[in-house]
Amino acid sequence: MTELAIGIDGGGTSCRAAVADRNGKIIGRGKSGPANILSDLENSLLNIVESARQALRDAGIAAETISSVAAVVGVAGANVTDYGQRIEKALPFAEGRVVTDALIALQGALGDADGIVGAFGTGSVYNARKDGRLSGIGGWGFVVGDQASGARLGRDLMERSLLAHDGVRPGSPITGAVMAEYGNDPERIVEFAHSARPTDFARYAPMVFEHATRGDAVAVGIVTDAATAIGESLEALLWPGCPSICLLGGLAGAYEPWLSRYRPLLAKPKNDALHGAVELAVKLLTDPQRGAA
Amino acid sequence: MTELAIGIDGGGTSCRAAVADRNGKIIGRGKSGPANILSDLENSLLNIVESARQALRDAGIAAETISSVAAVVGVAGANVTDYGQRIEKALPFAEGRVVTDALIALQGALGDADGIVGAFGTGSVYNARKDGRLSGIGGWGFVVGDQASGARLGRDLMERSLLAHDGVRPGSPITGAVMAEYGNDPERIVEFAHSARPTDFARYAPMVFEHATRGDAVAVGIVTDAATAIGESLEALLWPGCPSICLLGGLAGAYEPWLSRYRPLLAKPKNDALHGAVELAVKLLTDPQRGAA
Repeated sequence: MTELAIGIDGGGTSCRAAVADRNGKIIGRGKSGPANILSDLENSLLNIVESARQALRDAGIAAETISSVAAVVGVAGANVTDYGQRIEKALPFAEGRVVTDALIALQGALGDADGIVGAFGTGSVYNARKDGRLSGIGGWGFVVGDQASGARLGRDLMERSLLAHDGVRPGSPITGAVMAEYGNDPERIVEFAHSARPTDFARYAPMVFEHATRGDAVAVGIVTDAATAIGESLEALLWPGCPSICLLGGLAGAYEPWLSRYRPLLAKPKNDALHGAVELAVKLLTDPQRGAA
Repeated sequence: MTELAIGIDGGGTSCRAAVADRNGKIIGRGKSGPANILSDLENSLLNIVESARQALRDAGIAAETISSVAAVVGVAGANVTDYGQRIEKALPFAEGRVVTDALIALQGALGDADGIVGAFGTGSVYNARKDGRLSGIGGWGFVVGDQASGARLGRDLMERSLLAHDGVRPGSPITGAVMAEYGNDPERIVEFAHSARPTDFARYAPMVFEHATRGDAVAVGIVTDAATAIGESLEALLWPGCPSICLLGGLAGAYEPWLSRYRPLLAKPKNDALHGAVELAVKLLTDPQRGAA
């Protein structure tokens, strides 16, 4: 095995890789297509490997070196049945581990410290490391979970706009804006909702926060419900002496003012998920027994 | 035009028809395949006509008579863009009107009286007739509406079962039963939820009511939320002097004990939706100007 470690953040829109030396110093970066292992295992594998090759090329290292490096891949779905192991077996690295996207995000945010990480983007999910042990909750998707996700904020906005249209609940500027966008035709909202993917609903999340900040009663109600859900999940994970809570994802900054109760614990993430993957890969290089634990 | 009136209840699983004389006396009945005009206009038309033919045959009347009767068809989607008109044009009756399934249900339940009708099955929708004028709210589908539908009860049950599994909210016998059904594997619930249609979620509605009746805290929470939503919608429609509220649909009886606030107004429906269609068809026969208004 060479003295190189590759960390890979395998995401639904792209795979990003970074190659580091034994001390964790990043010397090259690569990027390729998406990794959606649950829906397209084969192309995910190709993209994961391609991002690693590009990182080596970027560092001026021969591509064949890939077979003698240590690598850690973080990817959503790695914990679903045997998907993680199937990828692990097919990887060309001397030593390769496949872990969840949540784990590399937590490692990036907290480093080796204990703490809690809540990620808020299209979905929402929580992970904790306590006495070095990991646990996670949430992330069950927006149909029956992800209560604080952008997708749920958008779906709630559509629902409350229809209730306002029907005169069942009071309207507000934001419900008026939504109805106007759909030509004041509830059927068009229903049509949108029935074909909308989580990302389609999540596009309304910034609008919800904007109106909530201005005091729009309906928007405040939506965000307050989501913040209450965040509080419930944090309480389920929190323990006396928990050193910090990191909020990650595109909506982290927007939620912060609504989580004042947790302000003393809120901390900026140390690094991003890709960096977390690199850290775990360096551990794998220097201590294969403990690596990527 | 002959002195015959045909009412047709065009439903998502079957079309039912009844032929009546000028006085509303039913003399024949027919049944055929489903009418889903928004997804399959052509076959819906065939089934609507076939149910009418069968009703005539059942009454011992020649099928060709169909071209000289007055008929009213109640079908979901009749008010969406021009679907209703398109069917009306294609119908073979001497005089034919296409109205919403909600209108024939209201006519059946209230007769010619004023009042409110709430229908609770896989979906949920409310209609009122005040001073002879119709208005309706709800029925926007379970993704962003139908707050008191069987589909929402089932979806809520899945969501609360996952929250209990994660330790975010307290569990109860019903969440334990759901988790056991899915091998205590939240991934399997997520898998179910992402491919489940409204009817799949709605299958859990009876279970929710059973547990709620026994005092299960989570089930009581789900039903209470739904009953609160019903109350909000009724309040939006109610007026001083409203003579009655009829609850219709498969969940009507289950909801009744949870709507004690409205008990003085609750009344049994006079007839079913098919009978409502017949009544409207008779009006069309006897007073084409006012028929099916």
